[in-house]
Amino acid sequence: MLRLDDLQYKGLKIFQDTEEFCFGTDSVLLAGFASVRRGDRIADLCSGTGLVALLVTARCEPYSCLAAELQPHMAELCAKNVAYNAMEDIITVRCADIRKMGFGAEAGSMDAVVCNPPYMKPDGSLAGEKQSVRIARQEIECTLEDAVSAAARLLRFGGRFAMVHQCERIADIIAAMRASGMEPKRLRLVQPRADKPPRMILAEGVRGGRPGAVWEPTLVLNTQDGGYTEELKRIYHMQI
Amino acid sequence: MLRLDDLQYKGLKIFQDTEEFCFGTDSVLLAGFASVRRGDRIADLCSGTGLVALLVTARCEPYSCLAAELQPHMAELCAKNVAYNAMEDIITVRCADIRKMGFGAEAGSMDAVVCNPPYMKPDGSLAGEKQSVRIARQEIECTLEDAVSAAARLLRFGGRFAMVHQCERIADIIAAMRASGMEPKRLRLVQPRADKPPRMILAEGVRGGRPGAVWEPTLVLNTQDGGYTEELKRIYHMQI
Repeated sequence: MLRLDDLQYKGLKIFQDTEEFCFGTDSVLLAGFASVRRGDRIADLCSGTGLVALLVTARCEPYSCLAAELQPHMAELCAKNVAYNAMEDIITVRCADIRKMGFGAEAGSMDAVVCNPPYMKPDGSLAGEKQSVRIARQEIECTLEDAVSAAARLLRFGGRFAMVHQCERIADIIAAMRASGMEPKRLRLVQPRADKPPRMILAEGVRGGRPGAVWEPTLVLNTQDGGYTEELKRIYHMQI
Repeated sequence: MLRLDDLQYKGLKIFQDTEEFCFGTDSVLLAGFASVRRGDRIADLCSGTGLVALLVTARCEPYSCLAAELQPHMAELCAKNVAYNAMEDIITVRCADIRKMGFGAEAGSMDAVVCNPPYMKPDGSLAGEKQSVRIARQEIECTLEDAVSAAARLLRFGGRFAMVHQCERIADIIAAMRASGMEPKRLRLVQPRADKPPRMILAEGVRGGRPGAVWEPTLVLNTQDGGYTEELKRIYHMQI
């Protein structure tokens, strides 16, 4: 069933299919974290229904944004969302496999790339879900390494790649970035609470960057009584 | 001038030379972080005046602890501290260059290794200090990679290596561990305050470990009004 959600930011609204994968906080955090500048040429890989592309476009005003999504029905919904929010002039949606060279974007042509890839291991944990949901959430058709190397191929020298992933994968993230000629330059852990271990990491690599990473203060999502922290509220409204 | 400091833990006291490098919070955090088990054979590399070796020995009761320190006058003070705390049965101090193979410890003989290496780049920032202080604080005679590879050489398969370093070096830490056959398995950022960026990272690698790291909640040292947090107080008293 299609559901229209209000993103509470610049009037953006997004259709999601409640029987398919729906975006989570991680996508919003990524959209708030990515260093995208006005006028940039950017790409959003594994774009799903387009949440990250929509938010980043509204927040940062890139010149263009290529949203690439593997699954046809998700890409279709993404295009519908782009049209609904009147962003067709900026965002182009392409149903494409980012593992294949030249899926419509020239190598080295992007100033920034963002990606919220599937990040669960393809184990039996989603056995009850349909295949399209598994593909959206598990590393079946796109691994961490696939996402990083696709991003590196698209980026110009000095271009930035922002991703969100499980923080337990930190070593794989860093190894993949370095293997693709990117250096992790900006990092941020995300904790559910001040006294709980982090689960996610926001990571930005720079193609051709020099060693040395800046960490931002660990982002805490919820207060001890379970409400949103002030910072999470600000991020939800992209007041960053 | 020699000064005797009370470590406020099991009666431990430590002599330090006020004109030489004196330990900081990072060493105490490392001593509290390292996974050392009762009966382990361990080594403390870049031991300085022995703070980490003393605290870990008192907290974890290893079978033996080899404290290796490059600078003769520091190694001498370390031996004095071991004797003063009546730990000669467990801690052996050796003035040794850990870059050299076989500095008195057999390869693969250790269950755990700890190290608080010098971690500043050898730039001009300590120009006014004497050479021995620069050697203790800057990567002049021992780099991150030297420390990691010495630790890997000493560790048995499955052995643990805990270190503290500047968190901006995360990618180098991970790359060095993996290059030496260790996998980062336990990580913790250290922030001066909840709203300030982290400066240090506590990192534990396991020789032959499988990919996948557990992050502990980011450690915050000071409250907003500048006092110690409850957790830092607990660590200072090794109530962990």
